[in-house]
Amino acid sequence: MKQFISVHDVDNINALVQKALTYKANPLVDKAIGEGKRMGLIFLNPSLRTRLSTQIAAENLGMQPIVFNVGSEGWTWEFEEEAIMSGTTVEHVKDAAPILGNYFDVLAIRTFPSLQNKKDDYSELFIKQFIKYAGVPVVSLESSTLHPLQSLTDIITITETFKEKRKPKIVLTWAPHIKPLPQCVANSFAQWINAWGEADFVITHPEDYELDEQFTKGATITHNQDEALKDADFVYVKNWSTYTDYGRIYCNDPAWMLTEEKLKATNSAKIMHCLPVRRNVELSDEVLDSSNSIVTQQASNRVWAAQTVLAEILKANG
Amino acid sequence: MKQFISVHDVDNINALVQKALTYKANPLVDKAIGEGKRMGLIFLNPSLRTRLSTQIAAENLGMQPIVFNVGSEGWTWEFEEEAIMSGTTVEHVKDAAPILGNYFDVLAIRTFPSLQNKKDDYSELFIKQFIKYAGVPVVSLESSTLHPLQSLTDIITITETFKEKRKPKIVLTWAPHIKPLPQCVANSFAQWINAWGEADFVITHPEDYELDEQFTKGATITHNQDEALKDADFVYVKNWSTYTDYGRIYCNDPAWMLTEEKLKATNSAKIMHCLPVRRNVELSDEVLDSSNSIVTQQASNRVWAAQTVLAEILKANG
Amino acid sequence: MKQFISVHDVDNINALVQKALTYKANPLVDKAIGEGKRMGLIFLNPSLRTRLSTQIAAENLGMQPIVFNVGSEGWTWEFEEEAIMSGTTVEHVKDAAPILGNYFDVLAIRTFPSLQNKKDDYSELFIKQFIKYAGVPVVSLESSTLHPLQSLTDIITITETFKEKRKPKIVLTWAPHIKPLPQCVANSFAQWINAWGEADFVITHPEDYELDEQFTKGATITHNQDEALKDADFVYVKNWSTYTDYGRIYCNDPAWMLTEEKLKATNSAKIMHCLPVRRNVELSDEVLDSSNSIVTQQASNRVWAAQTVLAEILKANG
Repeated sequence: MKQFISVHDVDNINALVQKALTYKANPLVDKAIGEGKRMGLIFLNPSLRTRLSTQIAAENLGMQPIVFNVGSEGWTWEFEEEAIMSGTTVEHVKDAAPILGNYFDVLAIRTFPSLQNKKDDYSELFIKQFIKYAGVPVVSLESSTLHPLQSLTDIITITETFKEKRKPKIVLTWAPHIKPLPQCVANSFAQWINAWGEADFVITHPEDYELDEQFTKGATITHNQDEALKDADFVYVKNWSTYTDYGRIYCNDPAWMLTEEKLKATNSAKIMHCLPVRRNVELSDEVLDSSNSIVTQQASNRVWAAQTVLAEILKANG
Repeated sequence: MKQFISVHDVDNINALVQKALTYKANPLVDKAIGEGKRMGLIFLNPSLRTRLSTQIAAENLGMQPIVFNVGSEGWTWEFEEEAIMSGTTVEHVKDAAPILGNYFDVLAIRTFPSLQNKKDDYSELFIKQFIKYAGVPVVSLESSTLHPLQSLTDIITITETFKEKRKPKIVLTWAPHIKPLPQCVANSFAQWINAWGEADFVITHPEDYELDEQFTKGATITHNQDEALKDADFVYVKNWSTYTDYGRIYCNDPAWMLTEEKLKATNSAKIMHCLPVRRNVELSDEVLDSSNSIVTQQASNRVWAAQTVLAEILKANG
Repeated sequence: MKQFISVHDVDNINALVQKALTYKANPLVDKAIGEGKRMGLIFLNPSLRTRLSTQIAAENLGMQPIVFNVGSEGWTWEFEEEAIMSGTTVEHVKDAAPILGNYFDVLAIRTFPSLQNKKDDYSELFIKQFIKYAGVPVVSLESSTLHPLQSLTDIITITETFKEKRKPKIVLTWAPHIKPLPQCVANSFAQWINAWGEADFVITHPEDYELDEQFTKGATITHNQDEALKDADFVYVKNWSTYTDYGRIYCNDPAWMLTEEKLKATNSAKIMHCLPVRRNVELSDEVLDSSNSIVTQQASNRVWAAQTVLAEILKANG
């Protein structure tokens, strides 16, 4: 693996999942492979799980991780080519990235979308510029449109939870929120589940929340949440803002919040969410606190997803 | 020791003090006991001494400490059960704590009081919720009403400083300040000195600054600072805001600031303060810069207090 | 080396440079000399290269570095003696520094100038107070008037780049900027190049941007940039605000921005800048992106400069 930006960087999802489960059973089995390697974790946006799980994953492989919060510790970055930097950005990614590439063997970066400029966001300007200039392997810790470490974690979690021989029915449902959020987690989940191909996959959301077809193609899409939930084995809950008329909140109907009542139609579905979750806005307490919720298990699996990806990158760039 | 939240988690204060002094003499004697253990230091509020001393203590025991500043690096937390999270809090402690408990073997957390809601603060809502959901041993790095690592440090410092056979006279005196501060350090010092039982303990403050009796019971309390200081061996200086009419500044009489003049009545008392201290507001330069001040020694002992507590927790949770 | 604050702490610049190039060839050759030593990196101001390169340098020597951002993680510091601390500063350096000196074997600190109070800035009040009270060796990570780790890096970079037997012509040129910046990098570069004595050294800037003679004495100074650039082997580009009428922007003529056109008069000069750089304000894209730019190599050499200084300090302080 040369980099880890999307599912397109992965040859065999199931092989990654199996490797992750091996690490979960024995975290320190590859303690030697990262020895003497230094990893930079660069955050342009806040993070709890992603930062800690990736830091721990690097340590489990014997790497030395160093965290750097660009906003609070350093200088705001410019990503546009040919920018005349007389505004608020203090340093160009063209200058920062190659130096980080000299300091570190592997770089990981989190860059949220603006939600203002769809073209830049969906061209993945920030992370692509970073990769272009870094000169070392780059791992996405969530970019403008995708969150691949989360999606790999999600398939690990589904795999270890679902033991039947048939394909599980997996439903991605939109949920209300008070702020316009990125489409990353939903896009990425759709992209990975489609690429995985081992599920009956349904996406449900109110009108106007259609996601980009490049990610959803292959899924059944419906505006009828009740219908979508029917016989579901997994319900993945997530808010996102509009894609077409970009970055807005249209409908915010609280009826879309998942409740125990709604879950009765499912096959005792396991409930997933990438967290952080706004309780009683996106998801009711009763659902999150029920035994059907696997959000803690899911978040804990972030370590094994990150460790697997880093191990693959170390191997390929040895 | 299952956790370290207050003096009630301690069986034998003097045994802890002796262990701390052993670590001070030989910091790396227990380098092996934390091997392979990971500690999360979670800060909801700023910290200098507490963060650095605990981080160093963990490393002295061979543990891997990871610092996480919730406010600047992550997401604001909600602590109320059944909250409808449509406001400024982004993540519930019910969701964050169990994940941190999966990532780390031991957790330490700093959570200041609101000073707005006495009931929540004095119920220790934040740290209790954190403990309830973390699932691993929790160490307080200062909570809404107590600061036990500071108090253990204080008794270590008094023990190594006072060599006479009689009980020392210890005076906790209120000092002026420009902002309403928590009662934590004063509460905790009172709680520990009372539990220790090896001092003649006097608390002095202006009217209206009475502390909660659950902590002060056993001490002599007076509004007459001069009388209190008479023959004191140790004077612990600290501001706090009012407890009864909660979180306010009533009297802020600069005459309460400790000066050399006032100290003449003492038995060449050693001066203690948890720091940070507002010079020439809480304590005069002449006192802080005199040879009677032991504030640097005191702050340095924070390492040995933290190391002792972590060692006890590792032992009990093997 | 007892401390590293300016070129006056250095006996032999070329010996340091050679040692740095040894470390560049073999980063881990002195892995053992910092074992069991702890280094505190204290930031009162933001940093990317300085923080990461020094942290990596410490690790290369086997030291344990701990980063602490005073502003965002801790308490604002007071530096004035006898201050009555009833304002915004929460802790005096007299109290913070000795404790840090107890926690750490070596301290490094970044303290920017106010640009308001020339007397305090040019007396180096902040770092001198820190040194006075720390009690352990202190390394400057940039102070009010100097940036010695940058300057050592610069001479390392010039040495490894320039292979002719004659002295190189080195030009320090002022560049436009949108904000009043410190004079540190320019002062320090001038101080080191003058002390080094192995260059034909020219400083050029618009009227009113004269630097303090204590640093520039020995250099040729001109307001004519074109004349200065003639036959230059190295052009060091940097903005600074006025020194005499302190901390202001007078002329901000964009004609001072370095372009390919201007560089035609040089001897294919290598372009240096300490970074961060405002592209197309201080320096044009065409220059920064040309093969003459050595800014990335320069920033990467920060690691070896820091590692050399730390090794010298470890050696001198046992």
